[in-house]
Amino acid sequence: EADLTLFRCENGVEAALQYAKMWCRYAKDLLAWMEKRISLEQEFAKNVMKTAEGAKITVAQQELMPLQYIYTMALEQDIKNSVTSRRTNELLQSRCYQALA
Amino acid sequence: EADLTLFRCENGVEAALQYAKMWCRYAKDLLAWMEKRISLEQEFAKNVMKTAEGAKITVAQQELMPLQYIYTMALEQDIKNSVTSRRTNELLQSRCYQALA
Repeated sequence: EADLTLFRCENGVEAALQYAKMWCRYAKDLLAWMEKRISLEQEFAKNVMKTAEGAKITVAQQELMPLQYIYTMALEQDIKNSVTSRRTNELLQSRCYQALA
Repeated sequence: EADLTLFRCENGVEAALQYAKMWCRYAKDLLAWMEKRISLEQEFAKNVMKTAEGAKITVAQQELMPLQYIYTMALEQDIKNSVTSRRTNELLQSRCYQALA
């Protein structure tokens, strides 16, 4: 029905093509944002994990230090969260970004 | 009491000094991790905000696009979250890191 209306209008085909072009650019802009957003999350998770793993080794090397168990737990939580975050973002990458790209 | 026990031991003073030195290194390692962790959060928040602001401008320039309102809301939420995150990390920096450093 919309097709017919457009077809009857003056410049209807041109208007439809113009809209399709704009839609395309809009989708491309959104995909660029999505890709950037996912890569920021991945990079952040990777860096947090690397930092936590380094700190965990350093903390474990020492003995009988105050709050050592608490800090080790916090570092392990950082590592666990980063693993979850990376997995989630891989899913987003394959299910959302790649599905739309 | 612990002071007296150490004082009476052979090498008690040396042991105490040794422990103090190890404690110092442990604190320094933890502070280095804390500083790195805070700076990662700050950098991530800054990048997410910058990306969202860029995408928001691009999305706003176009008209009558599908899900435009939803994407604008998501981008604004990203910006709001980043502002909150930066403020929280500034607090952590001044109250935790600088207080211990």
